[in-house]
Amino acid sequence: MSTKVKMEAVKLTILGCGSAMPTKKNFHSSQLLEMRNKQFLIDCGEGTQIRMRQFNIKTNRLNHIFISHLHGDHYFGLLGLISSLGMLGRTADIEVHAHPDLERLVAPQIAYSCGDFPFKVNFHPFNPRKNEIIYEDRSVTVTTFPLKHRVPTCGFLFEEKQAAPHLIRSMIDAYEIPIKELAAIKNGADYVTPDGEIVENSRLTTPAAPPKRYAYCSDTAYSEKIIPFVEGVDCLYHESTFLEEDVARIKNTLHSSAKQAATIAAKANVKKLIIGHYSARYKTNTPFLEEAKKVFANTVAAEDGMSFVL
Amino acid sequence: MSTKVKMEAVKLTILGCGSAMPTKKNFHSSQLLEMRNKQFLIDCGEGTQIRMRQFNIKTNRLNHIFISHLHGDHYFGLLGLISSLGMLGRTADIEVHAHPDLERLVAPQIAYSCGDFPFKVNFHPFNPRKNEIIYEDRSVTVTTFPLKHRVPTCGFLFEEKQAAPHLIRSMIDAYEIPIKELAAIKNGADYVTPDGEIVENSRLTTPAAPPKRYAYCSDTAYSEKIIPFVEGVDCLYHESTFLEEDVARIKNTLHSSAKQAATIAAKANVKKLIIGHYSARYKTNTPFLEEAKKVFANTVAAEDGMSFVL
Repeated sequence: MSTKVKMEAVKLTILGCGSAMPTKKNFHSSQLLEMRNKQFLIDCGEGTQIRMRQFNIKTNRLNHIFISHLHGDHYFGLLGLISSLGMLGRTADIEVHAHPDLERLVAPQIAYSCGDFPFKVNFHPFNPRKNEIIYEDRSVTVTTFPLKHRVPTCGFLFEEKQAAPHLIRSMIDAYEIPIKELAAIKNGADYVTPDGEIVENSRLTTPAAPPKRYAYCSDTAYSEKIIPFVEGVDCLYHESTFLEEDVARIKNTLHSSAKQAATIAAKANVKKLIIGHYSARYKTNTPFLEEAKKVFANTVAAEDGMSFVL
Repeated sequence: MSTKVKMEAVKLTILGCGSAMPTKKNFHSSQLLEMRNKQFLIDCGEGTQIRMRQFNIKTNRLNHIFISHLHGDHYFGLLGLISSLGMLGRTADIEVHAHPDLERLVAPQIAYSCGDFPFKVNFHPFNPRKNEIIYEDRSVTVTTFPLKHRVPTCGFLFEEKQAAPHLIRSMIDAYEIPIKELAAIKNGADYVTPDGEIVENSRLTTPAAPPKRYAYCSDTAYSEKIIPFVEGVDCLYHESTFLEEDVARIKNTLHSSAKQAATIAAKANVKKLIIGHYSARYKTNTPFLEEAKKVFANTVAAEDGMSFVL
């Protein structure tokens, strides 16, 4: 089982990549990140549960929901999702990580509509203006970092921890190594045979894949302060609500252009950039992709339903 | 202009006809009724605003929203819709007719997210257990009547008032009737020419179309108490969450089968029945339609996006 966990790819599914106004193609912001056999929901705009149905997503490994900020297009789907999880027979608690105001805003409706569910919705408030670890387990950490928007907003950095090396089964069998020794070998120990032969750890194991890192930045104006937080990540999602030509809108709304998203990606030396959160005023995302690629070639323009393996 | 109003057909658009769990095809409950040049939204499940976008519905004549009961699948789309109306530059107030608890539940989020909008959201509480007129203007009335469900729930009866008769243009011209006389003629007066000739009203006008009536019943168990309220309506929407074979579910959840919906339609002598609010456990609505048609032939099985002219 532990081997299976380590082999699991990190997978990102775009549930919604529209902005404040939905379009025929794109719902409000929401993404599902699967990392180390766990599911993390990032933002939960209206229709998130509908997208999950449409994209055949099962949520039995979903326990943690992260909300970047309290604009409705990033959290209005929360109540519907929680209600439906209740109807699906869920029993495990749901953990919601968000600005402290969220609990006050939605708790009355949760009490009213979900009061008889066999699970609780636990709120874990954080300060979006801080850079801090808000979630950690034995294999993953989630860190906030401040973005620049009209209300307190943060980005999230999801990082795998370095996994233990893989045992080389043929060597374990050849030396008939007892099971009780395996944990130590995974932790780096050499193996000493009953005859006193020292078998070096490097002959018994292969290194696990390097840990993956995914950073989510929505919503934000162009801010170079983001760069150190997302430096070198395997994948960066950075909002691109407008095109560069919409100077006034970019300035007034504290959103980014595709070029600006790509500039952050380039300066932070990330491996891949996904852009999204397109304003509904554009018919297609083609001009976004063209604008971004001039600055950062490895850019993909998100559409609802796309999945990426990191 | 008044002639145009009278000529407007009554049009019903199904925005969502799923039940508590959305499916790939059907969103949560919501319908748009266009009557006498006004738009009335009936229930507002999650994704209502998305459906409006997908079905190219403009909402510039939408001022009144009616919520049948406070299960989330009938109102969780309200906040997103209101937010988007604000972003679309709306200035007219929105009137929400619902159980008194709704204001308490959603007002904090409206204040938080929509506080700077140039319009207000006004709540008009009603008692879903009563049969009363909750909306009236010069051409339409909306009446509640109690349904039988797990929480206080009502149906809505939308009725056109009898419109004034149409003037026969050729006769008006032939007699050179002054414009100032036309209002009286529309109200039934004869016309007396300068020569003293009496032109009877029936020669100057044709009767307006008989007023249309639409009744909405979701959610409800089978209840013959509904019948007098919907007697003879032009169109009845009656929920059919289950098939007749699901006896236990029908009983436990206080929903109806397709057969039960059709029985109400038949006993109430309605002109047309639309069924919907299908449980997500069924793959298609074909068995619903088959079951209902055995009892009431003029039945249509709703799908999201369907429109009906009454």
